[in-house]
Order: sequence, then C-alpha cells, then structure tokens
Amino acid sequence: MIKNRLKDLWSKGQPALNGWLAIDSPFVAEIMAGQGYDTLTIDLQHGALDYSAMLAMLQAMRALPVTPIVRVPWREPGIVMKALDAGAMGIICPMINTADEAAEFASFMRYPPLGTRSYGPTRAAFAHPGYGVEANGAVLALAMIETREGLENVEAIAATPGIDGLYVGPSDLALGTSAGRLPPGFDPTDGELVASIKRIAAVAKAQGIRAGLHCGSPEYAARAVSWGFDLTTVSGDSRLLAMAAAASVTHWRELTQTRKDAGASSAD
Amino acid sequence: MIKNRLKDLWSKGQPALNGWLAIDSPFVAEIMAGQGYDTLTIDLQHGALDYSAMLAMLQAMRALPVTPIVRVPWREPGIVMKALDAGAMGIICPMINTADEAAEFASFMRYPPLGTRSYGPTRAAFAHPGYGVEANGAVLALAMIETREGLENVEAIAATPGIDGLYVGPSDLALGTSAGRLPPGFDPTDGELVASIKRIAAVAKAQGIRAGLHCGSPEYAARAVSWGFDLTTVSGDSRLLAMAAAASVTHWRELTQTRKDAGASSAD
Amino acid sequence: MIKNRLKDLWSKGQPALNGWLAIDSPFVAEIMAGQGYDTLTIDLQHGALDYSAMLAMLQAMRALPVTPIVRVPWREPGIVMKALDAGAMGIICPMINTADEAAEFASFMRYPPLGTRSYGPTRAAFAHPGYGVEANGAVLALAMIETREGLENVEAIAATPGIDGLYVGPSDLALGTSAGRLPPGFDPTDGELVASIKRIAAVAKAQGIRAGLHCGSPEYAARAVSWGFDLTTVSGDSRLLAMAAAASVTHWRELTQTRKDAGASSAD
Amino acid sequence: MIKNRLKDLWSKGQPALNGWLAIDSPFVAEIMAGQGYDTLTIDLQHGALDYSAMLAMLQAMRALPVTPIVRVPWREPGIVMKALDAGAMGIICPMINTADEAAEFASFMRYPPLGTRSYGPTRAAFAHPGYGVEANGAVLALAMIETREGLENVEAIAATPGIDGLYVGPSDLALGTSAGRLPPGFDPTDGELVASIKRIAAVAKAQGIRAGLHCGSPEYAARAVSWGFDLTTVSGDSRLLAMAAAASVTHWRELTQTRKDAGASSAD
Amino acid sequence: MIKNRLKDLWSKGQPALNGWLAIDSPFVAEIMAGQGYDTLTIDLQHGALDYSAMLAMLQAMRALPVTPIVRVPWREPGIVMKALDAGAMGIICPMINTADEAAEFASFMRYPPLGTRSYGPTRAAFAHPGYGVEANGAVLALAMIETREGLENVEAIAATPGIDGLYVGPSDLALGTSAGRLPPGFDPTDGELVASIKRIAAVAKAQGIRAGLHCGSPEYAARAVSWGFDLTTVSGDSRLLAMAAAASVTHWRELTQTRKDAGASSAD
Amino acid sequence: MIKNRLKDLWSKGQPALNGWLAIDSPFVAEIMAGQGYDTLTIDLQHGALDYSAMLAMLQAMRALPVTPIVRVPWREPGIVMKALDAGAMGIICPMINTADEAAEFASFMRYPPLGTRSYGPTRAAFAHPGYGVEANGAVLALAMIETREGLENVEAIAATPGIDGLYVGPSDLALGTSAGRLPPGFDPTDGELVASIKRIAAVAKAQGIRAGLHCGSPEYAARAVSWGFDLTTVSGDSRLLAMAAAASVTHWRELTQTRKDAGASSAD
Repeated sequence: MIKNRLKDLWSKGQPALNGWLAIDSPFVAEIMAGQGYDTLTIDLQHGALDYSAMLAMLQAMRALPVTPIVRVPWREPGIVMKALDAGAMGIICPMINTADEAAEFASFMRYPPLGTRSYGPTRAAFAHPGYGVEANGAVLALAMIETREGLENVEAIAATPGIDGLYVGPSDLALGTSAGRLPPGFDPTDGELVASIKRIAAVAKAQGIRAGLHCGSPEYAARAVSWGFDLTTVSGDSRLLAMAAAASVTHWRELTQTRKDAGASSAD
Repeated sequence: MIKNRLKDLWSKGQPALNGWLAIDSPFVAEIMAGQGYDTLTIDLQHGALDYSAMLAMLQAMRALPVTPIVRVPWREPGIVMKALDAGAMGIICPMINTADEAAEFASFMRYPPLGTRSYGPTRAAFAHPGYGVEANGAVLALAMIETREGLENVEAIAATPGIDGLYVGPSDLALGTSAGRLPPGFDPTDGELVASIKRIAAVAKAQGIRAGLHCGSPEYAARAVSWGFDLTTVSGDSRLLAMAAAASVTHWRELTQTRKDAGASSAD
Repeated sequence: MIKNRLKDLWSKGQPALNGWLAIDSPFVAEIMAGQGYDTLTIDLQHGALDYSAMLAMLQAMRALPVTPIVRVPWREPGIVMKALDAGAMGIICPMINTADEAAEFASFMRYPPLGTRSYGPTRAAFAHPGYGVEANGAVLALAMIETREGLENVEAIAATPGIDGLYVGPSDLALGTSAGRLPPGFDPTDGELVASIKRIAAVAKAQGIRAGLHCGSPEYAARAVSWGFDLTTVSGDSRLLAMAAAASVTHWRELTQTRKDAGASSAD
Repeated sequence: MIKNRLKDLWSKGQPALNGWLAIDSPFVAEIMAGQGYDTLTIDLQHGALDYSAMLAMLQAMRALPVTPIVRVPWREPGIVMKALDAGAMGIICPMINTADEAAEFASFMRYPPLGTRSYGPTRAAFAHPGYGVEANGAVLALAMIETREGLENVEAIAATPGIDGLYVGPSDLALGTSAGRLPPGFDPTDGELVASIKRIAAVAKAQGIRAGLHCGSPEYAARAVSWGFDLTTVSGDSRLLAMAAAASVTHWRELTQTRKDAGASSAD
Repeated sequence: MIKNRLKDLWSKGQPALNGWLAIDSPFVAEIMAGQGYDTLTIDLQHGALDYSAMLAMLQAMRALPVTPIVRVPWREPGIVMKALDAGAMGIICPMINTADEAAEFASFMRYPPLGTRSYGPTRAAFAHPGYGVEANGAVLALAMIETREGLENVEAIAATPGIDGLYVGPSDLALGTSAGRLPPGFDPTDGELVASIKRIAAVAKAQGIRAGLHCGSPEYAARAVSWGFDLTTVSGDSRLLAMAAAASVTHWRELTQTRKDAGASSAD
Repeated sequence: MIKNRLKDLWSKGQPALNGWLAIDSPFVAEIMAGQGYDTLTIDLQHGALDYSAMLAMLQAMRALPVTPIVRVPWREPGIVMKALDAGAMGIICPMINTADEAAEFASFMRYPPLGTRSYGPTRAAFAHPGYGVEANGAVLALAMIETREGLENVEAIAATPGIDGLYVGPSDLALGTSAGRLPPGFDPTDGELVASIKRIAAVAKAQGIRAGLHCGSPEYAARAVSWGFDLTTVSGDSRLLAMAAAASVTHWRELTQTRKDAGASSAD
C-alpha cells in the first residue's frame, strides 16, 4: 500500500523540515535530497522551472528518503493533476481565498467519488508500487493562506473536506493584509502579522489539520514549531547557494585584501 | 577590441578569485555570476554537464562582470574549439604531462599561424564584439599539472609557447605523485605535496606565466596567493549548496530536537 | 488544401487505430509512427511530458503517414490553441460535462466567425502547406465523456456545434459513474458500464459525429468497433514497453532458472 | 531602482521598435537582441516555445540593451506571474474583451495593494538589482484588442486602472470583426479595418496610455507610428529567417539555372 | 563501502540479465529499471542519446535495484571518465583490438596508482555514499571483441590487468571477421561465428574474467549462459517497443479486417 | 534500397545548393528544410549545438526533400559514427591534412570489410527503410582541405579510397595558407587563395570525386559552380537571420528617423 512519510511523521507528533527547490536541475534536487530534509518542495509557482524540470527532479529524488511536494502555479486542475501523476505526494496551492476555492482545489486532489481527479497516474504508478485509487488516502492538499480575504475565511477554508493543511507565505501575507504598510520578507516580527500567522496555526489545530510556514532561518522555523506549525520550510536552494557563495567570496577578499573590479562587462 | 578581464586583473598584479560550476543549470550560473567572483569555470570534465548546458550557462553569465573559463574533459581538439567558439575566454586542460602535450593543447587555442584552431566563432562573435583572429591575444590556455610525469616535466610545459598558465588540482596531484600514500582532497597539508604545489607556482613565475590552484576554503586560497598563485578556486556550486543546506538542516534539528527518520524509502 | 487523413478514413467508413504516447521522447514518437497506426495521440494530460516534448514529437512524426492528435490537460484555451499551432490535427479534451463546456471547447478549436481561436499557426503553417483559416475544416474536436454529469448530458454535448466526436476513457467513467463500486481499468466487463459505453457510441452515431474508446487490448478494441466506435486506442508506449520487457525478463529467468535478487539498492 | 527602458523611451516621446521571438532557441534570442531592437517579445502564445525556453531566452538577452516582453498564451494568472518572475518587463495579454477582463489581467501584474501578484521574483531579483515591490512601477501591462467585443469595449478597457497600453494583432482583429469577410494577415489595407486600428490608437492616446501594432514590414510600421502608435513590431525571427533563406535559394537557382528536384523524400 | 551488485551476483556464480537503453528518456530508463533486469546498459555508442540524457537516466534508475552500465562511443578518456563520474558502475568499451588498447581503456577506469582516471566523482559521490578511490574496486571494465584483430588478440586482451570482462557484439563480429560473408544480426547460427563467440567466453573463463554477449532473444541468451557467458543482453528498449507495438497493430488489423492506408503523407 | 538524393543529383550532372545550420533548434531546421535547399548541413563543429540538438534536427528534417549532412567537430570515430547512426547521409570532416588522415576518416564511414564503422544504426534504421550494410553505398565522406599541409597533400587525399569529395572552408584556408597575410572571411578575391580553391576543385574532378565550397553569397556560389564545384553552401541560419533582422531594423529607423539609445543595460 502506498504511504506518505510526511503523514507518518505527523502521526507520530513530529514536526517536519521542508527544503525548497527553485533551480531547474535534477542534480540540485538529488543533492538537496541527500542533506536530511524530511520533505522537499518543487516550486512551480515562483521557481525558475516548469513541468519538464519537475519530472526529472522527482525522478532524481526517488531514491532518497524525502517526501516530494509540489507547489503549483495556480489553482488550475491541469497542473495539479499532472504534478500528482508525476509522483508528487503533496500539493501546495497558492492563493486560496474562500471555502469554495478550497473545495475546488481539494476536488482536484482525489479520485471520485471523493473528488474529480482524472485517472492516469502514468509515472506515479511506475514509481510508487501500489499507486491507484488508494492514492486518495496518501496525498496531501495544502492550501495557502496569503491574502486578507483568505485570512478572513481561514476557518471555513480549514473546515473544507479534503484540505489536509494550511501553508503560510509571510511575504504575500504581509503584502496582502497590511495595505502597503509591510514589505515582503521572511521571518516577520511585526506584531499584527505574527498574530495572523499564529492564528492560522491555531485554526488548523482546532480543525484537526496541519499548518506549515515558509521561513528564512532555522531559528525562526524552530519558533514556528513552538507556535504549533507542523511543517517549516527553511530557505531554498537558490538562496542557500547565493549566500554561501557570497560569504565565501567576501571571506577570500578580506583575507587577500582585494576587491572586485566591477566596472567592466564580461566581454571586455 | 576584445579583452579578457582576467588578463587585465593580472596585468595590475592582482590575484583572481575563481568559482566553480558543476551543476547543469543556467540559473545557477547566473546566480553564481552575481556573487563577486572574478572568473567562473564551467567544468566539462567532472561537472554534471556537457556542451549544451555550457552554452546556456555562458549565455546566462554574459551580462555579469565575470570572465568565463571552461575546463574541457580531455586534450581533444573538438571540444577545446567548441568551448572557445561558445565564448569561453580561457580553457583549463586536464592531464598535461609533457611539453608535446602542452604544445598540442596550445595549438588548439590559437588561429594560424600561431596554432591550428579552426575559424568559426559562431556564438563568440555574436557575444563579443570584435571577436576574430584577435581572439588569439585574448584567450588563455591553462595546463593542468596533476601527475608525476607532469610534475617532472613542469619546466618544459611552462616553457611551451602558447601556454599562459599552469593549474593545479591537488586531488589528482596527490593520487598521481604519492603512489597511493595520499588520499585525494582539497587543501592538502602533506609536506611533500605542498612543496610540489609551491614548486609549480615558482616554475610558472620563473617562466613569466601564471599559476592557479583548486582550493576548498578561502583560508587555503589566501595562503596560495601568498605562495604566488594568481588564480585560486574556492569550492564550487555543488559543494557550497550541499554544505549550506546540511548546515541549515543540522541547525534546525538541534533547535527542534528532532532527528531524521531515515529508514523509509521516498515512496513509502 | 490542408487535409486530415483521419477524416478521409472516416469518410470511407473505416474505423481507425490510435496509438498512445506518454513518453517524453521524439525518438519514441518516431518509432511508434512507423508501426502502422492510423493516428497517434500525444497525451499532455496524463503523459510524462509537456509542450516542449510535444513539439519535438510532432516534428518527429511529420514524415510518417500518421495523423497527430493531442490530448490536452484541461479545457484551457492557451494549451488547446498551442497544440493546434504546433500542428495537432485533432484535440481530445478531458472532462466535458455539459453542453456549455462542450461549446467552450469547440470555440477554442476554430477561427472566427466559427469560434474564438487566435490566429498564429506558427509551426503548423510551416509543417502543413496551405494551413490557414481552412484549418477550421480540417481539425477535429473530440470531447471526453467520463463523469456522471457528462453521461447525463451526452446528447446535448454531442449536439453541440463544432464537436466532431466523443471519446471515452473507461477508467474515469468507471470511477465517475459507479460511486466507488468499480475500480479504474481498461476493457471493462461490468454490465452497467458497458451499457454506458455503448450508449455513448450510439448517441454519437445518432448525432452524426464520431466516437472513440480507450482500450487495453486489440480484442476489446475490435469489439468496440463492432459496437460502432470509429476510433480505438490500444494501449500506449509506456505499457507496451513495460509489458514487453517484463515478458522478456520472465522468459529468460525461466530458461536460466535464476531469479532476481531484489534485496539490494542500486549502489550497493 | 529598477527601470524599464521602454518607459524611458516613451517618456521622451519616442516610438519603439519591437522584434518578435517564436523560435525556441536562446541563441536566436541572443542574435536578435544584438540587432538594434528597442524591445523583444517572446511569444508564448503562438511561438513554438514554452516557459523553459523563455527562461533561457531571457537569460541570453540580459546582457543586451533590449527590454524583454512576454506574450502569454492566455489571461491565466499562473503564467503571467511566472513570466514576470522570470524577468519580463512587460506582458502582452491576448483577447481582452471587456473591462472586467482588463481589470483581472491588470491585477495579475502588480503586488498588493495595487493587484494580486504573488511575491517571489526568483530570477527577476537575481537579474534586476533592486527588484521588489517597486517592480509595480516598472512593469507594463499591454492588453490586446482583437475581437469585435474588445473593439466595442475599447474605451472601457483603456480606462481600466493598471492597463498601460493596448496592443493590436491585425490578423485576429480582421477575423474577429469582419464576420469572415477579411482573411488574416499583416499590414491590412481594408478601410474599415484600418479605421478600427487607428481608433484603438486614438483611444489609447485619449486615455493617456500607449498603443502597439503588430506589423509585417518597416513601411507599414512607420505608417503606424504616424498614426500615433508608440510600439511597432516588424515581423519576427521565423519569418525573417524563412524569407531570407528563400530569397537566397531563389537567387542561387536563377544564377545557376537549376531548379529543385522536389519529387523524392529525404531518405530516398 | 561502495559495492557493485553485478560483482556480487557473479561472486555467487550466477549469470546476469542485462537490458539495453537506446532511447533518450529518463522515464523509459525508470520503466525498464522496474522490470527485473539485473543490469541496464545505457548505450552512448549506438543509442539515440548523449551525456545529458545519460545523466538524467542514471538519476532515474538510482532508486531501483539495477546496476547501471554505460557503453561509451569510443575508447576516449573524456567520456569514459565522465560516465564513471556520473555514476556508471561498469563501462563497455567498443572495438578493443589489441592488448595496448585494452591497457589504455583499463587505465581510464581506475585512479592512480592503478590507472590514470582523474579524480572528481561529482555526481557519483552524491549518489553512492562511500564513493572515492575505493571505486577502483567496484567498477567494471568490459572490453568489446568485435573485429578480426580483436579476435586474434583475445588472449592478450583478456590477460590485460584491469580488464574485468569481454563483451561480444555479434553484428560487428560477423562483419569484422567474415570478410563480407555474413550479414550483421543478433543470435547468429553460422558455425564459424558461433565458434568464435564460444572461444571468447572460453578465453575469459581461462583468464578468470567474465564474458558478456549481446543477444536478440531469451532463448539465445539462455544458450549463451550454457556456453559460459556471465552476462547476457536480451534486446533493448527501442526494439522491444517497436515489436510490441507492431504486434498490437497487426492483431487489431486482423480482428477488424482493415489495412493501413499508407499512401498519404502525415499532413494530407 | 536506401538512396542519397545528393548522389542522384550529382549523377545527373547537377550542382547542389547546401544550407547551413548553426542554431540549436529543430524548428529552425524544419523552417530551413522547407526553403528549397538540396542539402542542409548541421554544423557540430562551429555551430552552437551538439549531438542532442542534432538528433532532434534530423528528425524535424525527415519529412522534407533535403539531404541531411553533418559536419563533425573533429576526426573522431565516436561522433562520426553517432552522426551516421542518427541518420546523416553525409559527413563533412574538418582538417584533413594527409592521406593517412583521409583514410582514417574514410574507414569510420563504412562497415567492414570496407571500413571500421561499428554496426548499430539505431535511429537510421527506423528513419530510412532498408538501412543496413547497404548504407556503405549511400553515405558520403567529404574531407575538408583547409591547411597548408592539406593543400600540399590534396592529390593524395583525393585519391584515398572511400573519400567521396573535398570541401573547402575559405576562412581556414586563408588563415592556414597565408601565414597571416589574409584575414578569415567568405568569398575571397585574393589571387593566390582563389587559385588554391580552384585547384582543389580541379584535383577532385581529376580524381573522379566531388568538390564543395563554403560561400557567403549566391553570386560567389554561382561562380564556384562555374569553377567546377558540385556543392555550394550559401551562408547559414544565424547569419541569414542576423542580416535580415538588422536590415529590417535599419529600414524602420530610417523611416521613423529614430536611433537606438544604446547606453542603458537591459535591466535599467
């Protein structure tokens, strides 16, 4: 029978650590999958990649004990079902603002009679022995709460049958709820915004579903766990790489007392 | 007229910082090119990529003030010339063991009458205004010294017309010269090996050419600069990413006091 | 003038044999196109491929006497029109549940005044001499009936102007109409389901349009032809390959009296 | 601060010349970007390419002084936002028929509180220093008027907050407004159609926004500029290549007095 | 410590079943890897694929208990080492004609002091925990005997240190040793050719190394096992697919009593 | 039986017109193949593409009456045979300097006993019905004469069994024979260089083989035909596109009396 390790982890009461993939390289996916994350999310929404990269990345991750999740670009049935058919064990759907939208998203995730997912798990059936209509019980539907409207309707969204969890992107939530007062960014400290974030976790808990938060540091993520979040993302491949490379460069420049001659173009 | 920023930097007596690209993603190349390196080397030899990825990576780096170098898989004229035609401003050629091999490599790098490069800089001419036979004066030929034989012939190699510099890979040099005594690895401390490395820099200097060293840390690279190396590589994209991700995971696990449940496979 | 061989075949009263492409390889498309199928359908919905693979596959099939059809992921105008612009001569659209949805799908397929297709047949015009607004008369719109709602509305759907045929996926129809009683699968024998399938063919016939059925074996497909189906799909590339390989392996193991030592992972 | 060169050009009262990219090759994008166009539009709607090609093409164009625009396949938020995140500085959206559709499109283009764009400019932030919510002031939303309904509602569409310009595709406008009387094609001369085209430019001007026209020749484009159009497209890569190659072939055949032996297939 | 399942199998005295991959699709590799083969060989020589496809295919196979082998296009160090760095556990090298050529090939396979392999197992080290110089003991070097010269020198080739096995391609052996008398083809029955094939297995056995044979059917492969071959290939993906599809088409045509209307081209 | 249209054309005493492909796009190959060329050469040497692009380009050209030729990067058996296996009907090999090199190249082109080509025409056999050892009589081996040494040995090269023609690249010939006196470029007028070019055609004729010349204009190509050349290349895709686009831009700027504001970078 097909299983979902993230569900197992949660059933033991443990929080999960999620990594984030925005680079269009199966090798990057394979490297990241070997670093100890519980789950890895391929970001089809803001990542620099699309379906064809996602497919190869899912294949490259198959050998490793990490649960593959996909964030889709939008609440569109074609891509939700294609990501599931390719083997995603969970889908994060952006911009769920109402219970109706939540229900629509949830319906894309399960085969009838539970939902409207079309049958044809082409790669999933090769990759996951036992895949079939039992996938209904294994995949996870995570709805993003990131607008004022979504926040207002969070209880109804959380109560929608088929929604397994809420996921919070603090940048969009800041932009969407502060009327321009707050900038986008990870790890917010603004009191009102933090209260909204905590409220989402509390609503999920009350409803018996899960909550996830997009973070920018292990410290903030650990705090989020203490607030009741079950899934925390700590940065992603592109930012980890850029920061590590920049730190290495800066350190070398300090040690060698040189500085970048930035004036010229690459061909000069 | 076509210029090579690395040559300019060297003409001012400054050491250069090189980054290393082993991931098959133009987005990674673009990210790395924005972090302040003087040069970036696309590794066709040991990197997880080939010509088609290299081409897109060179295009993605064009906008940024970083000199693109390519390490070819072997001393084979087809790929050396293809990398140059694609816009590489320098070529690192592995396993140069004799002056004859050095001369052969050097001949691939320049148009007649200096060498035997075939004319047809298809992309280079679009990317670098002024590209033509003047490229002879702009591109750099860097010969790798990484075997016992190469080390024995290092003076003759350095004296070969058309060789602009020597480049040292300490892993291969350790394996190639220690008869199994030393393991491969970055930043060696073994006295004999360090002496060999310093000797290569000294030979280059005496010959009026340049020397580069593949390092694993800014500290070692800075030391290499003090030994006379003109170009130092400090780690690469795949290792930077893996280490940054692993550190982030470890930190989160400490803070949340969880540990990876490694038993299950991804699909379970 | 642009023609559609499938239409010609049908005008002669002959049933057509359709092959199915779920593998993202132009070479597979070229191989399959040489095996004698009348039509080949590239499955953008459940296949492990997207637009970029489809484009190369359509190019690889052009030399061969097979009519290219595309199944789109969903009733979304962008991808329907892109598939047509790339040269598809027919579109299978999943999950048509009402006459309104059928009309919407039909409108995407034809240029005004018949429909709302946007003009710009970029590759189609290079591949099909004479392509232009006459394409309106050449392309085929096939609506999938695969839900309870679709079955209830099948007469209205079939009567919608611009719908050229109905296509039945038995797996989804089983899931969608049996309230969980029937599993998904090819070649169903359940009386009620078979009656529904036959009814769809009869409705199509009565309306003067065509009907197609997705089958799992030549035997069932031949039976479907006898029921009045004009187009039958017999399995697809991924299943044909897997079954042929598995049979070959089994036969070798019997002959050599060995068995697979399945315990170890690939790297061990 | 992030800027948009097209806006600068317009603020100086100058018309802009746009090139068109329908070929799925970053090398073509790089070649075209070096020929002197002010802007280049990657055509995701009718071009033979999708997101993955677009991403590499945007990277290849970054080094050159040309403003990248993307035409999306449809008014679908996922792809509009992905194109912006990949670095497009303007979006051309097809088939805007009503003020409501215009408002919907406009909302996808800006971050709250102006619109509903989701935050996560993954590549854009690496490619455009300073990218952030200030992008709201830099990107351009261009709505296509190409149907009878759109033409009837053109004043309301032009008056929609967030719409920066109107763009006219004469082929679709001919098909969409002539009830079958006019064929599709560039550079129309039909009086009624020309009047409609001029009216769209006039409406834009009256509303204080911009107007663009898809043309087939420099002559017609220059005339369009005289009619008040601020952006004119003159043919595209696939047509430029085909026409130049065909002319070269014809010229050779005349000079050598040979003709193509068209009977045989490629393999014979 | 890194292990090679094929070596384990052989150490238990069991013959191995090899599958063959000539299609450029990771999904095909994943499908084939799930059918029960002991090993799968990616054919860079005659397959319709190159390094970039091979890399993704190796990644897609990682999760499955099948040992990945690569046949290189030629005895060229660049590609031999790149295939190993990408994770191949064995290399089949075509056209080994002399002991010198065998020694050259063998040297490319191992790190010093055993050989001349350059150190940098970029992907292999991520995919195979423990990969390092111990890889010397895990990878397999298989030399192809397929010419008259190779057959004459087979004892010396088999005796070359570092050669782990001989591999026979009967098509090339037929062409190379019969002076035009025999056509290429699988599963030869010509007495002289069969004798040569058996002799190669015998020489391998006498030398304490392994022998492999490329076959076209399980029956012939089983016979080869009885002749002492340790590794038998039974057909490959492209032929399995073509034959299965052709059989399915033929069966349908018989049942429906139709025949292919082969006259028209795809666009007509 | 497999045929080669170029051979047919030549057997009728007609010169052939060759087009040149340096862009990595199957769509470009398909467009070019529709413009009336007799042959099209995919340039693996100086083109911005490699094997994987070539394969898709060959597939895209199959439907059109144009003979596909491939120029390989170097006289290396692996790529010569891979290009043939992919369906190339002729190979242009650069830098043939001696009769030995010519013989080596010729041997790669034919199956034993004529040569040393390895058997396995994977895609060729699917694309060209009847492909097999008869391919020996269909494929063409064209040796490039482009160095002083090659020119000196041109009679011996032309007399080498298996060489079907000579091909001249005037840029390399200028660089290789003028000791720096002449720049590279198409359509040379220098008396000595023109004499060398004519001599190559005369040597070919005397030897009963063919001669080809790389030209930059139909006029020069027509002159080359009058000199006895059997195959003339007139420019290529990248140059045709760049020139056509630049002319279009210039014309628009003249008509609109604007000029490019070249100061700013793309992101500003």
